[in-house]
Amino acid sequence: MRFISRTSSDGVTEQLFILGEIPGVLWTPEDAAGARPLILMGHGGGQHKKAPGIVARARRFVTEGGFAVVAVDAPNHGDRPKTEEFAEVVARLRAGMAAGEDVAPHLATMHTFLAGHAVPEWQAVLTAVQELDVVGAGPVGYFGMSMGCGLGVPFVAAEPRVRAAVLGLLGVDGLAEAAARVTVPVRFLLQWDDDKVPRAQGLALFDALGSADKTLHANPGDHGEIPEFETGSSLRFFARHLG
Amino acid sequence: MRFISRTSSDGVTEQLFILGEIPGVLWTPEDAAGARPLILMGHGGGQHKKAPGIVARARRFVTEGGFAVVAVDAPNHGDRPKTEEFAEVVARLRAGMAAGEDVAPHLATMHTFLAGHAVPEWQAVLTAVQELDVVGAGPVGYFGMSMGCGLGVPFVAAEPRVRAAVLGLLGVDGLAEAAARVTVPVRFLLQWDDDKVPRAQGLALFDALGSADKTLHANPGDHGEIPEFETGSSLRFFARHLG
Repeated sequence: MRFISRTSSDGVTEQLFILGEIPGVLWTPEDAAGARPLILMGHGGGQHKKAPGIVARARRFVTEGGFAVVAVDAPNHGDRPKTEEFAEVVARLRAGMAAGEDVAPHLATMHTFLAGHAVPEWQAVLTAVQELDVVGAGPVGYFGMSMGCGLGVPFVAAEPRVRAAVLGLLGVDGLAEAAARVTVPVRFLLQWDDDKVPRAQGLALFDALGSADKTLHANPGDHGEIPEFETGSSLRFFARHLG
Repeated sequence: MRFISRTSSDGVTEQLFILGEIPGVLWTPEDAAGARPLILMGHGGGQHKKAPGIVARARRFVTEGGFAVVAVDAPNHGDRPKTEEFAEVVARLRAGMAAGEDVAPHLATMHTFLAGHAVPEWQAVLTAVQELDVVGAGPVGYFGMSMGCGLGVPFVAAEPRVRAAVLGLLGVDGLAEAAARVTVPVRFLLQWDDDKVPRAQGLALFDALGSADKTLHANPGDHGEIPEFETGSSLRFFARHLG
């Protein structure tokens, strides 16, 4: 794990790093010392580790919750090279959208394709980050919406170090089996008028989660319109389970 | 409005009162002075103003939020006489349950029957309580699950002094028209495995609410098993909208 840069502003220290081929970013409270709960944050499709929504949420988690937060570029996203195989998957997704087909199976294919790489990558990042004094081997949470949920469900199902997760903005296609293996407390966010994920498919993914402790939060609005107050609510959810 | 008793314990003052034929209870912070936000709390079917769930929630709202809280016995409930007409409605509900019929239309009939009295009663109680120095004409919220929702939806739709509501544990039968007239922020609680309210009917009531700002919280478990953390979440919801 190689650190590339370190900057601080408004009480938050941001460090860019590379682990193997994975570019990442670690946010911690400025002048933080000692171990603290860690949140892994998975970005959405076509986004990257420093997408505005990721950065804003990470900074709140750091300043209001004292968490460490890590985001990485998912395979074929952000600063990472795009493979021909991925380009073909994306082309089929776009062609399906243009033809007015049901997008869900195409999205599921893309997420399954990416998850084969993303799951072991998150595990390696987690191991490396937990060796830092400012993080340590404390409790770990995962936050991921949309594609961050599509890659997060198999990751959380596979990784016992993750103790709580905030997921959402995605349907059940391709995820039912992995969702059933998720047993940690889950907060699931659903947008009632989601233009990308049919309501019934989102409800079915919540239903499929194996966790005894899971809560659905549904709000009016489109895919990208999760209300700001849900960020504070997610923060309290993580504080309750990782604090 | 006639006060009957006044006791205080653990920082909460409880006063029993009678307004006309309506027995009620007012909880306020011990030694409270001056106006404060008020929560009207509607109890469930077969329950009363001092049912354990009502009392526990009221005490938290008072001690953690500084609210005043009022509960009353709904018509034909608690200390109030039961009319023959109500007994017939209940008998039809019980016969329907015994026969394995869909209970929703029977519940809707009962709630519609009661709401004709309960809505003007709540309005009279609100007017009387707001004349007290310790309450005043400040912001008002309504909290009601199950029958408390069935009577609360028409009340909140009719009463402009109510500025936010926590509702839930009920389906859309008989309530669609009133729900569409609710425009204040609503938190709606749904139990994912509710043995009394089919999931689709609960989701349909949330859908029917006219409010632009409404959030569904769904948790696993039966009708009576709302997790304790939702009480704190409701408290923050009211603090955000009435504070």
